[in-house]
Amino acid sequence: MDMLKQAILQKGVVLSDGVLKVDSFLNHQIDPILQVEIGSEFANRFEKNEITKILTIESSGIAPALTTAIKLNVPVVFARKKKSLTLSSNLLTAKVYSFTKNETNEITVSRDFIVEGDKVLIIDDFLANGEAALGLASLVEQTKATVSGIGIVIEKSFQPGRKKLEGAGYRVESLARIASLENNTVRFVEELIVNK
Amino acid sequence: MDMLKQAILQKGVVLSDGVLKVDSFLNHQIDPILQVEIGSEFANRFEKNEITKILTIESSGIAPALTTAIKLNVPVVFARKKKSLTLSSNLLTAKVYSFTKNETNEITVSRDFIVEGDKVLIIDDFLANGEAALGLASLVEQTKATVSGIGIVIEKSFQPGRKKLEGAGYRVESLARIASLENNTVRFVEELIVNK
Repeated sequence: MDMLKQAILQKGVVLSDGVLKVDSFLNHQIDPILQVEIGSEFANRFEKNEITKILTIESSGIAPALTTAIKLNVPVVFARKKKSLTLSSNLLTAKVYSFTKNETNEITVSRDFIVEGDKVLIIDDFLANGEAALGLASLVEQTKATVSGIGIVIEKSFQPGRKKLEGAGYRVESLARIASLENNTVRFVEELIVNK
Repeated sequence: MDMLKQAILQKGVVLSDGVLKVDSFLNHQIDPILQVEIGSEFANRFEKNEITKILTIESSGIAPALTTAIKLNVPVVFARKKKSLTLSSNLLTAKVYSFTKNETNEITVSRDFIVEGDKVLIIDDFLANGEAALGLASLVEQTKATVSGIGIVIEKSFQPGRKKLEGAGYRVESLARIASLENNTVRFVEELIVNK
């Protein structure tokens, strides 16, 4: 997705070989035009999957999940990282280990909103080790709903997330795939362009 | 705003005289059509204010802030409730006391994204005691930016938030104003309908 790759090249900041800071347009300040394009692109890629619900996790997943939901005209549900006081006890839960923060969070979703028969598209801003996406998929699998796919805004392809998700049988669609951040430079995975 | 009031009446759950649960359409599962309407309504109410930036707070404020940002074509920035590892030390901070949770959180925004000259529209999902909105306004006032107004999706008008914000000189626009939740019933503030 060209607009996203251009934003990464122009506004992203490589903090280390593993960390790309995109807080000027994606996960702190949010560029609304880019988010609308991201939503359109995810909607295009999953339009044949009869998605009934989008699942993401607070906070940075909410924007791309919402613009996708607007395009597909389905509800979005965001998992919480700690239990809310006004949520009922009727919760789906999964443990998610964060390598970045070296801590395990419990993520939760109300059983009222992911239900048997749902075809769920999981959306998140980053894919690195795949822990968050696997946790979200686990929430879906605990009901008799189906994970129809996983949409990622920025994939760090030098980390094992995609391999783990594909190994578990999930389709992964990433809008920007980063091969390396070494030498303070963003290098994208070279993708075959197929003329249609 | 009729669509919002209808959603509150049909899908909201009164948990006590002080607590309205709206997690089926607003702050856990999100109805995308309603959010687009909310964004359009905020954009209409503030269209003459030459807004340059929208400021909200994670997580439930992000959806209405984003749909408003899409309409006004300005960036949205969301304050975080605890410091992110990849945010720089260059932060604006404010303390926000939560009556619901009986705890004080530090909220933070990067100084890169709220800057002198910005005309900031603050958006949040709920207004009760006004602590979150005052904290957000404090972040703006710490720079030489201006708070152009505060847009609230659901105002609990029986709590002191609006009075505090107006007392501090801010314009408050709430899309649904709840006069009371007593007797398990949502009663809206009666508003004068002016024929235009």
